[in-house]
Amino acid sequence: MSTPRIGIWIIGARGGVSVTTLVGLSALRNGLTPETGLVSCLAEFAHLPLTNWDQFVVGGHEIRSSTLQDEAQRLHHDSRVIEAVALEKSQDFLASAEANIRPGVLWNVGPTIRDLASPDVAVEKSARDAVDRVQADLRDFQQRERLDNVVVVNLASTEALVDSSLWPETWEAAEEQLGQPDCPLPASSLYAIGALELGMPYINFTPSLGATPKGIDELARKKNICHAGRDAKTGETLLKSVLAPMFASRNLEVMSWVGHNIFGNLDGKVLSDPDNKASKVKSKDQLLERILGYAPQSLVSIEHIASLGDWKTAWDHVHFRGFLQTPMTLQLTWQGCDSLLAAPLVLDLVRFVLVAQERGETGALGVLGSFFKSPLGTDRHGFAEQTEDLIAWARRSS
Amino acid sequence: MSTPRIGIWIIGARGGVSVTTLVGLSALRNGLTPETGLVSCLAEFAHLPLTNWDQFVVGGHEIRSSTLQDEAQRLHHDSRVIEAVALEKSQDFLASAEANIRPGVLWNVGPTIRDLASPDVAVEKSARDAVDRVQADLRDFQQRERLDNVVVVNLASTEALVDSSLWPETWEAAEEQLGQPDCPLPASSLYAIGALELGMPYINFTPSLGATPKGIDELARKKNICHAGRDAKTGETLLKSVLAPMFASRNLEVMSWVGHNIFGNLDGKVLSDPDNKASKVKSKDQLLERILGYAPQSLVSIEHIASLGDWKTAWDHVHFRGFLQTPMTLQLTWQGCDSLLAAPLVLDLVRFVLVAQERGETGALGVLGSFFKSPLGTDRHGFAEQTEDLIAWARRSS
Amino acid sequence: MSTPRIGIWIIGARGGVSVTTLVGLSALRNGLTPETGLVSCLAEFAHLPLTNWDQFVVGGHEIRSSTLQDEAQRLHHDSRVIEAVALEKSQDFLASAEANIRPGVLWNVGPTIRDLASPDVAVEKSARDAVDRVQADLRDFQQRERLDNVVVVNLASTEALVDSSLWPETWEAAEEQLGQPDCPLPASSLYAIGALELGMPYINFTPSLGATPKGIDELARKKNICHAGRDAKTGETLLKSVLAPMFASRNLEVMSWVGHNIFGNLDGKVLSDPDNKASKVKSKDQLLERILGYAPQSLVSIEHIASLGDWKTAWDHVHFRGFLQTPMTLQLTWQGCDSLLAAPLVLDLVRFVLVAQERGETGALGVLGSFFKSPLGTDRHGFAEQTEDLIAWARRSS
Amino acid sequence: MSTPRIGIWIIGARGGVSVTTLVGLSALRNGLTPETGLVSCLAEFAHLPLTNWDQFVVGGHEIRSSTLQDEAQRLHHDSRVIEAVALEKSQDFLASAEANIRPGVLWNVGPTIRDLASPDVAVEKSARDAVDRVQADLRDFQQRERLDNVVVVNLASTEALVDSSLWPETWEAAEEQLGQPDCPLPASSLYAIGALELGMPYINFTPSLGATPKGIDELARKKNICHAGRDAKTGETLLKSVLAPMFASRNLEVMSWVGHNIFGNLDGKVLSDPDNKASKVKSKDQLLERILGYAPQSLVSIEHIASLGDWKTAWDHVHFRGFLQTPMTLQLTWQGCDSLLAAPLVLDLVRFVLVAQERGETGALGVLGSFFKSPLGTDRHGFAEQTEDLIAWARRSS
Repeated sequence: MSTPRIGIWIIGARGGVSVTTLVGLSALRNGLTPETGLVSCLAEFAHLPLTNWDQFVVGGHEIRSSTLQDEAQRLHHDSRVIEAVALEKSQDFLASAEANIRPGVLWNVGPTIRDLASPDVAVEKSARDAVDRVQADLRDFQQRERLDNVVVVNLASTEALVDSSLWPETWEAAEEQLGQPDCPLPASSLYAIGALELGMPYINFTPSLGATPKGIDELARKKNICHAGRDAKTGETLLKSVLAPMFASRNLEVMSWVGHNIFGNLDGKVLSDPDNKASKVKSKDQLLERILGYAPQSLVSIEHIASLGDWKTAWDHVHFRGFLQTPMTLQLTWQGCDSLLAAPLVLDLVRFVLVAQERGETGALGVLGSFFKSPLGTDRHGFAEQTEDLIAWARRSS
Repeated sequence: MSTPRIGIWIIGARGGVSVTTLVGLSALRNGLTPETGLVSCLAEFAHLPLTNWDQFVVGGHEIRSSTLQDEAQRLHHDSRVIEAVALEKSQDFLASAEANIRPGVLWNVGPTIRDLASPDVAVEKSARDAVDRVQADLRDFQQRERLDNVVVVNLASTEALVDSSLWPETWEAAEEQLGQPDCPLPASSLYAIGALELGMPYINFTPSLGATPKGIDELARKKNICHAGRDAKTGETLLKSVLAPMFASRNLEVMSWVGHNIFGNLDGKVLSDPDNKASKVKSKDQLLERILGYAPQSLVSIEHIASLGDWKTAWDHVHFRGFLQTPMTLQLTWQGCDSLLAAPLVLDLVRFVLVAQERGETGALGVLGSFFKSPLGTDRHGFAEQTEDLIAWARRSS
Repeated sequence: MSTPRIGIWIIGARGGVSVTTLVGLSALRNGLTPETGLVSCLAEFAHLPLTNWDQFVVGGHEIRSSTLQDEAQRLHHDSRVIEAVALEKSQDFLASAEANIRPGVLWNVGPTIRDLASPDVAVEKSARDAVDRVQADLRDFQQRERLDNVVVVNLASTEALVDSSLWPETWEAAEEQLGQPDCPLPASSLYAIGALELGMPYINFTPSLGATPKGIDELARKKNICHAGRDAKTGETLLKSVLAPMFASRNLEVMSWVGHNIFGNLDGKVLSDPDNKASKVKSKDQLLERILGYAPQSLVSIEHIASLGDWKTAWDHVHFRGFLQTPMTLQLTWQGCDSLLAAPLVLDLVRFVLVAQERGETGALGVLGSFFKSPLGTDRHGFAEQTEDLIAWARRSS
Repeated sequence: MSTPRIGIWIIGARGGVSVTTLVGLSALRNGLTPETGLVSCLAEFAHLPLTNWDQFVVGGHEIRSSTLQDEAQRLHHDSRVIEAVALEKSQDFLASAEANIRPGVLWNVGPTIRDLASPDVAVEKSARDAVDRVQADLRDFQQRERLDNVVVVNLASTEALVDSSLWPETWEAAEEQLGQPDCPLPASSLYAIGALELGMPYINFTPSLGATPKGIDELARKKNICHAGRDAKTGETLLKSVLAPMFASRNLEVMSWVGHNIFGNLDGKVLSDPDNKASKVKSKDQLLERILGYAPQSLVSIEHIASLGDWKTAWDHVHFRGFLQTPMTLQLTWQGCDSLLAAPLVLDLVRFVLVAQERGETGALGVLGSFFKSPLGTDRHGFAEQTEDLIAWARRSS
């Protein structure tokens, strides 16, 4: 029996995280880089039947014109992110993925994202039409590449926040919305629906809505398919989910937690639209209350500073009160390369989701909560307890 | 039946942590302050039979001349640590504790600590004589104050590092050392032996040797008594034990971890003796390897900067490698008041140790590992997992 | 001949900077504190005929009801800014100043400030009426207290930004505006006009408009009176004016300069109104271009974080390019107590302005540029060169 | 008349600063990089008769075996300092300089530096012999390359501190020392003497002794030659000389100034020898007292952290007191690439020294004080005032 071939279908295929994922996957296949940064390569998961790097085939949707090679070159040069050797050796792999890229969906993405789009991206008359086009592309990818499985991953820029009163509570309600001319579901949810209807797992790496509404989770369960989300936890929020439990465990009262984020990549530009930023800030901001049990004054800013390129710098100022009510301070400065922190998690999530699917798990995978700022399917927000859940799940899986 | 009276016997009774503990205990008895900073007051421990604040009676050993009131006044004025009201209302309580203070032991404490001592502190001819004097003081305290129980807590300045080849492996070996004229055990261990032989629990809040040697732990087990230690985790090392597991869980390679600590209290002065500092640095430095599974280049400095008083400032620079081997950086600045971070943990430890004693637990209490930099009786060094152990123990205890 | 009596008339008399100035002035009169923080007490100015602390009499305008004593108590308790002894010894002095406080002017201050006002503050029908009331109060103060001189200092909360096309270019134009029912001049300018028409010097310590328009400067020159402003330089901007010249002198290219300010006093609350904040941010932000000769991407945020009280924390991230175009980084964290940094400068400015007046200098005093973010009467923005100007002026004055 | 050809003779020719200088000089000649980081390219100096990049010919002494190309490759790869294009285009220029490198002098450099030396570096019997060899190499360089002028620049690793009681007060005393078998002058001073005797200017970019002793300065004056030094100011100390004057000008009392430096290049390794580090720390530490007029508690550490390579990170914690004696804090983190900050200053110094020589200036050039931590020939330590001196000199020179 031949080794299964697995498709990764990336929404936002030419974005920084996607390109870094592809160059990294290529470097892993070529043995050019160790497995640093890959959670699934830890000893705790060595016994799982994880997909190998060379089993993956990549394609995806994208609304901008450009090429994977150009974007990789830009990351190499502007952000000093990708080394010359890794870039050079990834050319063939990028070319083969490039051939699998199709125009994306613009339904309800908001003006800032729409302005980025190439003029020849089609705009459908109904959301259902957009879903149909997505499904045609996915089926074509699976057939052409003879894939045993396809996982859909949303890495596209953050959409504007959708009023939660409009989220469909049931699959029936969602289906009804799809037919309406003013369907409030954004592109990220249409991709999710497209994937799940075809029985393909869906991962929402972004703060966009995706499969968050209960009605879409119901679809997943009906189809016996799993999904995971939302908003990958790579920097400042990761630190919050690590540090906030310390204050709680020591009974130290957090009075205020201020976080300022600056970075200069495309994500940053999209987030300079206040509507798009609202999705992001909300996702970053809510976990303090969940972990601490009360809401300290909290401030999160995200600003686009062009000179930083892909290097995200976050300054956090935590003002807390100790014994005898004395105020004290913890400050953090995080200087991380966003794409390089995110890319290995994309590969991890795909591998873990495939194990879950194999085991017949359906709906939102709460055990993957450690990967997300707004985890679906779990109430646990502390990073240590989320990590434990994942390890426990891995043990059960074996 | 009357409420039990519990003695807390503090080694280093007039030091900053001790005085802050006493002023804080007084403020808690008077309802002047909420329970911020007290772990034992968290909801997770509400069901435990914890000692009430007004059950405690305090005494202790001290080598310096001075008074608790003077030291409290100094903390108030120099370090702006204790508020005027709390200070004023604690005068009677401090006076009653002052009456219970006896001259401490100078056996093998090293020249820097000895230089701090009042000239009338006796120097014994043998370590066994010193133990005898300690025990006489402890018995006298228990009888005069009609105490149901006495817990001995070491808060004294850090002693010089003792070569581990000299640590007694058995109680028999320890007893033999006690009789030798050049007994290598330092004062902290003599206090521990004094307490444990009398059936009193011993807590080592400092990096000094205390009850660390196997031979002293054997004594505790023989006497059916518990002890806990070593070196309370209040600032930079606490953060390390919170953050290092994050790097491990995300498979990010820590290349170097540099920590610089500056502060201006008496502890700082004692640590400017390189021999004494060695004890402290070793305790702070070892846990990275335990948590990460490998030893990154690591540097810990502790320097006495007079102007800072009791405010400890720590700067940590963590240099780590992510996906595709890219170096990234996390920096922390911690500005905490050392005494105020430590004092509530003293009260927590006393309360938890009393519960353990009640339940018949003996030897080193590994479940209290979350409180210590070099925890005895456990292999767990990550703060989250240590916290879980404590909560699980509390559930079992109930 | 008796020693002259000098009045300081403070706009915003019960605000934090004012109260700190008064408590400090009282402490200086009582010999309770050294002259730390007072520029005018440096050796370079020892030969100048500076007013002594006990020559000053204080009064002022205020729109809020409250008392100086209550505000001083609040600073002592909430922000831990003023020590108990200094507070206690200042009671009589505060009481005598309290007796000289009159209701302020609300013309064109914007809704956020108006909401702070006591209901019994009168609202005039014309700006000219407001000026008349200000002048009646100033004359009454001078007569009752038998003052040889009165200096008016604006310490009131920052007003909303006034469109610069509305600034009067001539005194004639200003006078015409005063009579109009929709006179665009804000209260700060009316106070300035009130003072200057009476021949009293005016100091604008805030970003509000004050005597900035050419038409008001013309009035000062006509009346042979000097004034100084605008927006005292106490923290982050002071650092910018110290550090930016270094980058210029080393030919290092500043690519971006991000500054985030957080603090919790009343000023902070007023600045949470975007209109008021605009005045402040503009004042903080312009000097980079003036010093560097080009405008790097620049971001200044000011946010109200209640727990910080009067402690202003600023984080600055400077991203610059060196030789061979390599990007490098300088980060700063400034933790200063705003009132304590500002208060001595109020006293310095009053003393220096009195020397200038004595010497017959008129119009905007550019030699005081080192005190201000948006200095009037000078083109020099680097702190070192501004300081030199002041020292050279002092030499000339002698 | 043909354009003059100017030799730069570098002691430590294969070190990081030297190699970066050479690659940078090559990039400037090829127009591959703008003049960012070069002080001499500022508008203030545009009128000076500065040497052009293509007039320079480079040679030097070196004790280690290796090649310029290998070292450049290492900087490119390990520290990510030099970009691929600049490196590639500099190969010919590096090769021509490589041909001019001769074995260096090991007299009195201390064991740590001696251990780095290639075994075939000759060790002379007397210091005078070493000077003779240096001079033979310099003459040969000048003749072979037909140079109108040669400037000698010391970029070698920091030597151990020499007891100042051994510094020769007169040239006569120095000459006598040269003949003694235990001549206390280190290699850096022998190079200085060698150059100055031949009428070549000498620049001491390092904390080593060089031309610091009065006796060597006397030689320079006798020979009508200028020299400049000592210890280039590129990072933390530059910031100190920029910021300390601010505290002085605002009458803010600096209570303590702590600076921790970490970096991973060869310089760092040499500085892990306490004797060598002493030279460096002394140079960094003295200027606070000179600027402030009093000596705050001060601490400077320099530690070798391999992972940082050429990236020097400095954390400074300044604890100061303001009005009413309130303590406040300024913290800095500087992340600079040491070689890239230093290299342009090497070129600047050579160009300015040539102008001074042309104008007949002799002895230590105090006007170049802004470049040095321990400037010779001036008492001014504030960076702004030093910069002014340089600009005023440039005006005079024109």
